[in-house]
Amino acid sequence: MKLWGGMFEKETEESVHRFARSLQYDVRLYPYDIRASRCHAEALREAGVLDDAECASIVRALQDIERELDADNFMFLASDEDIHSAVERSLTERLGPLGGKLRAARSRNDQVAADLRLFLKDDCLAVGRLIVGMNEALLVVAEACPESPMPGYTHMQPAQPVLFSHHLMAYFEMFKRDLERFLQARSRLDVCPLGSGSLAGVTYGLDRQKMAEELGFGAVSANSMDAVGDRDFVAEVLFAASITAVHLSRLSEEIILWSTAEFGFIKLDDAYSTGSSIMPQKRNPDVAELVRAKSSRLCGHLSSVLGMMKGL
Amino acid sequence: MKLWGGMFEKETEESVHRFARSLQYDVRLYPYDIRASRCHAEALREAGVLDDAECASIVRALQDIERELDADNFMFLASDEDIHSAVERSLTERLGPLGGKLRAARSRNDQVAADLRLFLKDDCLAVGRLIVGMNEALLVVAEACPESPMPGYTHMQPAQPVLFSHHLMAYFEMFKRDLERFLQARSRLDVCPLGSGSLAGVTYGLDRQKMAEELGFGAVSANSMDAVGDRDFVAEVLFAASITAVHLSRLSEEIILWSTAEFGFIKLDDAYSTGSSIMPQKRNPDVAELVRAKSSRLCGHLSSVLGMMKGL
Amino acid sequence: MKLWGGMFEKETEESVHRFARSLQYDVRLYPYDIRASRCHAEALREAGVLDDAECASIVRALQDIERELDADNFMFLASDEDIHSAVERSLTERLGPLGGKLRAARSRNDQVAADLRLFLKDDCLAVGRLIVGMNEALLVVAEACPESPMPGYTHMQPAQPVLFSHHLMAYFEMFKRDLERFLQARSRLDVCPLGSGSLAGVTYGLDRQKMAEELGFGAVSANSMDAVGDRDFVAEVLFAASITAVHLSRLSEEIILWSTAEFGFIKLDDAYSTGSSIMPQKRNPDVAELVRAKSSRLCGHLSSVLGMMKGL
Amino acid sequence: MKLWGGMFEKETEESVHRFARSLQYDVRLYPYDIRASRCHAEALREAGVLDDAECASIVRALQDIERELDADNFMFLASDEDIHSAVERSLTERLGPLGGKLRAARSRNDQVAADLRLFLKDDCLAVGRLIVGMNEALLVVAEACPESPMPGYTHMQPAQPVLFSHHLMAYFEMFKRDLERFLQARSRLDVCPLGSGSLAGVTYGLDRQKMAEELGFGAVSANSMDAVGDRDFVAEVLFAASITAVHLSRLSEEIILWSTAEFGFIKLDDAYSTGSSIMPQKRNPDVAELVRAKSSRLCGHLSSVLGMMKGL
Repeated sequence: MKLWGGMFEKETEESVHRFARSLQYDVRLYPYDIRASRCHAEALREAGVLDDAECASIVRALQDIERELDADNFMFLASDEDIHSAVERSLTERLGPLGGKLRAARSRNDQVAADLRLFLKDDCLAVGRLIVGMNEALLVVAEACPESPMPGYTHMQPAQPVLFSHHLMAYFEMFKRDLERFLQARSRLDVCPLGSGSLAGVTYGLDRQKMAEELGFGAVSANSMDAVGDRDFVAEVLFAASITAVHLSRLSEEIILWSTAEFGFIKLDDAYSTGSSIMPQKRNPDVAELVRAKSSRLCGHLSSVLGMMKGL
Repeated sequence: MKLWGGMFEKETEESVHRFARSLQYDVRLYPYDIRASRCHAEALREAGVLDDAECASIVRALQDIERELDADNFMFLASDEDIHSAVERSLTERLGPLGGKLRAARSRNDQVAADLRLFLKDDCLAVGRLIVGMNEALLVVAEACPESPMPGYTHMQPAQPVLFSHHLMAYFEMFKRDLERFLQARSRLDVCPLGSGSLAGVTYGLDRQKMAEELGFGAVSANSMDAVGDRDFVAEVLFAASITAVHLSRLSEEIILWSTAEFGFIKLDDAYSTGSSIMPQKRNPDVAELVRAKSSRLCGHLSSVLGMMKGL
Repeated sequence: MKLWGGMFEKETEESVHRFARSLQYDVRLYPYDIRASRCHAEALREAGVLDDAECASIVRALQDIERELDADNFMFLASDEDIHSAVERSLTERLGPLGGKLRAARSRNDQVAADLRLFLKDDCLAVGRLIVGMNEALLVVAEACPESPMPGYTHMQPAQPVLFSHHLMAYFEMFKRDLERFLQARSRLDVCPLGSGSLAGVTYGLDRQKMAEELGFGAVSANSMDAVGDRDFVAEVLFAASITAVHLSRLSEEIILWSTAEFGFIKLDDAYSTGSSIMPQKRNPDVAELVRAKSSRLCGHLSSVLGMMKGL
Repeated sequence: MKLWGGMFEKETEESVHRFARSLQYDVRLYPYDIRASRCHAEALREAGVLDDAECASIVRALQDIERELDADNFMFLASDEDIHSAVERSLTERLGPLGGKLRAARSRNDQVAADLRLFLKDDCLAVGRLIVGMNEALLVVAEACPESPMPGYTHMQPAQPVLFSHHLMAYFEMFKRDLERFLQARSRLDVCPLGSGSLAGVTYGLDRQKMAEELGFGAVSANSMDAVGDRDFVAEVLFAASITAVHLSRLSEEIILWSTAEFGFIKLDDAYSTGSSIMPQKRNPDVAELVRAKSSRLCGHLSSVLGMMKGL
């Protein structure tokens, strides 16, 4: 049973359904979708739309659904368009008409926006921690050989001697800026869009400030049309990721170069090299090569997202 | 058991293995990998590397593997790096040392290049057929209303009346060029790289001309280093796809505009629209919107691939 | 005096004029604009719109204008929006109302499309000749040292010895494909759009076949709306250029690497290196570095043009 | 006379010189180059490399050069590679060997980095002011018609009524974020690289803190290799510009749509429309169309710069 379709005389074509389906991408949003749904149920209770028992039933059912999703035994249907409608469909199966009441005062538009922001907030933090770890690793290596000299190159021609530790610390500076960018992007997206409805706000008196606090958002969105339409933050996080990837690609390029027979500055650990079935003497810097290639993908994704946003 | 690693004292880190794994992407190459492997077995037989019985065993085992892959009951291992090593690993499990003999006179480099070319040859043809179908559909619609007038726009301002059929036939011309591009890209990539080894050719006397014919290739590659390193054809197919997607996006944009309440030129069929749970009167051109958004992704992929190729 | 504006009560803002001005970009189209205008004058004469004397006057004035443009003493006005309106304005100054008659049966839309196609036809040919020259140069070097060995690398690790000439001939193959792409793109854009008007064709009986022949076009466009709106060929030429640039970038990368102190395979000629004021021992492969950087710009332009086309 | 070349036996090829020349692009950096050069002269005086009279002569000569550049009567030579070498060449012509002394303790690498940062600091501020002006304009329009209703659309289908002022204020929010991004990018690039030399720092005791203060920089770079190699800030400013351009493009798209005959929500002012020579009734939203097209160019430039940075 679709959530819409009352005025339609024909069924949606199966191919349309398959084409529009985004479940394979957005299934990872489920913990955020359920958190936001619980928060919405509480807000509806406080607004008098749900009574205490109804709210408690919904919250329990959402917990059950989450447990099944965590354990990977939630039953998806082929007709589930995305994670949001899958959760809503399952809720209605469990609770009957009560499940549908959760739709009051929200739309998939503000719901998706909220889920995505919660997801990216966690993601930026996780990436931020990885960057800090990277910089700690650079410090460890730099401190282990503070005085080792190496040629400094310009135009790949030896120019002036530098310290290897100094060279590594250049990357430390790059990653420090990357971290800043992720944190600033995170802080800019840390805004709760719930209560914006499909674009024009909602009529029930939701306590938006409280909802934002419940969900850990730093602020409440100021304009409902912007709140549901805004995807700037996706591009901004991708940009932060692209620049970081460019830095990782440059470091990888150096690792590849330094581990050539000709330069021979470093020797890759067996555990981080791959070999060749035909040429057993080889020690390939596969990881560095893959990092380099994958960084192009991030830049391509950024380009896609900017293109999509322009077309919105 | 990895295909390489003889000189290595430590095991590859699990995370390296996961990072380098491409099986999730290249598993779709399996029919081509198996076809090319059969062809390679025959070539080794003719070169005297395999005797008739050995070749027959290998061909039979490859058929078994293909049947399992077709039926989706092939057992992949977590250690399978890509489809090529999975097939080779399975072959060795079935045939013992004989399985390893297939590695003579080829490398993963020429093998991957061959598989990818075979895959894209089929793909270009399949897309070409879809484009022909699209143009047939345009003709059907144009012929159904040969004299219907509509405003012709420049700068989205009505400029001069045109025929609706004339407007549609503009897209016919675009798709005709798209078809040409796919076919020319296909013809340029229709070159057999087998026999190039990892980059310097192979020492066994493979009958490259015959191998190319067996596999349906139109030509044999002229330079082994180019043959294994060339990915131009990936970018070229993506470019043909990107331009086609831009045309589909423009058509979608018109469908969206024409089906607005304000323009009201067309009414979308129920079977190809979606509705809204909150606003039952709506009839959303979701498919057209998704086409528009997805076309940006193709352009982004093109950008990624050009970036990767530059870094090779 | 603008070519339009009859119904407007206010003057266009100066900033709008400056923003919309494209003269700095399209001034290079002038030889094509004048050729197409002469051809159009002849077609109008044959259609009976101009008499022999009028046509001759126009042709003479166009020759004068071209001579001034060739000699760089044509007087542009700040109000000239683009090269097409500059030529038309100057024609009217020279011939009075007769100058305006050239506007019959054409619009800036088909005129720009024709100019751009003529320009790119020449451009593709010129680039094609440069590619042939490049390949001749590669052959000369390869033939000069047919047997020189060098390490062949995979993953930048020495894998198997190859011939230096073999390595160079890999580029020969790449550039051969590039040439093919330029020629196919050229052949696809070799279509005369004149007679399409602003989008709906023109009412005068122009002999379109003859006009195409006069201008050296291989075919006449089939659909007026496609003919004025189509910019596929711009993207296609840019794609051919981008792939070529990627190849040049890869060759440059090798030149940079080979001329490092560590690899030391080649020594750059003084005439093609630059030095450093601080470090006199240096011999920088600037040209190769610039080629590498500039190739990214072409890929970026391609991305821009695809983005623009999507928005048309 | 080139600044380098002592060990070279042959002259640089003229074509190499033309290819490497960047003067046409970087001439706009001249006010920053001269400011940084004056600051460097003072720092050399304090470090005891220049005496008071020498420093004063250099400062006077730099002022003369700046005056000529301001008045557009500075004599460039065909051999001037970039603005930095043009200024240095002119300085030496005016002061003899003393001019060359300014080269002590700096390299073109840290000089270019400093100029570019000073330029972009001003640029970000100027763009920031334009964004503020844009938002003030949106406020003026929104306040002029606070209660005017209009259809709110989702999927371009009328969904719920909204206030026109509310719709405009959605853009206010977007531009507010854009402003933040420009200011954060500016603050991240507000770092003085002088004293980094070509990559390994300089041996003279320059007072870097004082130089940074003189030039109005907020901080001093921490790592010399990062300071000369870092171009993150170029990508970051381009990203801020790209997102802003996407917002402008979306607003333009709405203006185009709203001013169609079919929607008819707004009427463009004569002063901001263009017309058509053939169709006098037309009122084309050219400015909005150009904004839309130009926004793709910014995204393309971003893509170029990320590609270039990856290759560094």
